[in-house]
Amino acid sequence: MWAMIATWRMAVEGITKASEQLESGIDAGYAVETAVKMVEDYPFYKSVGYGGLPNENCEVELDAAYMDGDTLSIGAVASIKDYKNPVSIAKKLSEEKVNNFLVGIGAEDYAHKNGFERKNMLTDRAKLHYEKKKKETLDKGLNPYDGHDTVGIISLDKNGKMCVATSTSGLFMKKRGRIGDSALSGSGFYVDSEVGGATATGLGEDLMKGCISYEIVRLMKEGKHPQEACDIAVNNLDKELIKRRGKAGDLSLVAMNNKGEWGVATNIENFTFSVATSNLSPTVYIANRKDGKTTYEVASKEWMDAYESRIKAPIEI
Amino acid sequence: MWAMIATWRMAVEGITKASEQLESGIDAGYAVETAVKMVEDYPFYKSVGYGGLPNENCEVELDAAYMDGDTLSIGAVASIKDYKNPVSIAKKLSEEKVNNFLVGIGAEDYAHKNGFERKNMLTDRAKLHYEKKKKETLDKGLNPYDGHDTVGIISLDKNGKMCVATSTSGLFMKKRGRIGDSALSGSGFYVDSEVGGATATGLGEDLMKGCISYEIVRLMKEGKHPQEACDIAVNNLDKELIKRRGKAGDLSLVAMNNKGEWGVATNIENFTFSVATSNLSPTVYIANRKDGKTTYEVASKEWMDAYESRIKAPIEI
Repeated sequence: MWAMIATWRMAVEGITKASEQLESGIDAGYAVETAVKMVEDYPFYKSVGYGGLPNENCEVELDAAYMDGDTLSIGAVASIKDYKNPVSIAKKLSEEKVNNFLVGIGAEDYAHKNGFERKNMLTDRAKLHYEKKKKETLDKGLNPYDGHDTVGIISLDKNGKMCVATSTSGLFMKKRGRIGDSALSGSGFYVDSEVGGATATGLGEDLMKGCISYEIVRLMKEGKHPQEACDIAVNNLDKELIKRRGKAGDLSLVAMNNKGEWGVATNIENFTFSVATSNLSPTVYIANRKDGKTTYEVASKEWMDAYESRIKAPIEI
Repeated sequence: MWAMIATWRMAVEGITKASEQLESGIDAGYAVETAVKMVEDYPFYKSVGYGGLPNENCEVELDAAYMDGDTLSIGAVASIKDYKNPVSIAKKLSEEKVNNFLVGIGAEDYAHKNGFERKNMLTDRAKLHYEKKKKETLDKGLNPYDGHDTVGIISLDKNGKMCVATSTSGLFMKKRGRIGDSALSGSGFYVDSEVGGATATGLGEDLMKGCISYEIVRLMKEGKHPQEACDIAVNNLDKELIKRRGKAGDLSLVAMNNKGEWGVATNIENFTFSVATSNLSPTVYIANRKDGKTTYEVASKEWMDAYESRIKAPIEI
């Protein structure tokens, strides 16, 4: 038995490649890194890695994390600029005895000294997105914040080891140095091979108010199915945020236990996610919530084609 | 009824001053900021604010966070250099709609634009500590890491509002850009006015493996007394870390519920903490663990005098 689950449609090529590795018996950590790197490398995914959208100063600042569910080792980088694969730096950091979470130029120092590849991560297309958004919002004094689609992937290998990794360019038009939930243990991700893992996407500032990935793993440890754990945790946090603050930001979670059973919950419309297991070829689903329960269906061929056209459509300024 | 609890002896002057504010009916958030600022400002506390020990490049990089238990609003800074009161920047950030957690030069940009006071936070004494440690460890190829005494303070005001704040210079001799648990919601701190709050000190890299502050608040929400919640959470994380990794780093926690009842747990010897409530004048305790239970006693006059001498003793290189 092996299995992977990931936030968003954009992860499906990555988990397809990593599935072959898991099928051949490769380690869960290696597989999850492979899958996230593919998302980071693809220029048309505008919220992760190369092609990710910049901050308000037109700088692409990236966050990524990695956690090993056997040892609970964590590695993370945040606000790092111009390195090709932040997830690989995070994974390498998880092997250090201390200093596992580095930010800004400290993270860049470490990546440099450890031979990681530099790359200007700002694409012409991302710059066009920036200029368009700046004209429409900042230049008019309007709120520019938009987009926060983190890729988060959980893997289970044939030996029963589980890992999780995340990678994101964060909130589009964020302030310089802003960190969301993706690099924060318990909020953006958590995994324990004895139980399962969870990972989040949405508004980082709200996700971290509930330590929601940790909470989902904890509910699974109590015996809850991943689907039930996800629904409980997302409903509770959504409800608390509305009660305390009048509104809740976007919250979407995927989870998997160490039997390869999985679940998803969201408070937005049409949250997509990708799954592959030893019994299921890589599949994209679309999730919605109704009466506090999340339901999902396989993304149609038409939906997949429209997505492809949308992410590659010319940008009109 | 009002109450405050804090990690370490170093918080006692701060909570003494803030106690007077709470007694006079002032807001829990204002009180906790007052108390942490006093710790940040005192040059002889070498793990927080001015006088805090530097990283391996002899730079003082500071982390701080603030959380409001009514709204769950969070503000945090990490790896910020040369601002006088990181906790006040964190508190201000908690009032922003998004971009609540900023690191490095992004945090400094924000502090500058919002008028916060600059100050070179490296004292002559901290530099002497650095030079001594460098000679003894780095120059001989030995592990230099030492010291990670975060101040974390929880406050409950007369209106029943609870807040928490943390501040630290982090691991002495850390790598540039290293973040521990202190700025991470759920790991270094968590508070919910409907339940209670918790805050941590110790090895950040291990504290964040258990989201331990969130877990303690959750246990209190289940009905556990703060003392029981602290003991359960610290024992569990300590046990899991030893099982998975062969050893556990230092873990010390304090917690308080919204009735002003409090608790403490630690896996080290002689963990000190400070408490003041409407029924208890500011008091320093020394905690130890025996058979999985934490016990504590009031610090003696002799202990307090020896502490005072120790923190001010000349540094011999």
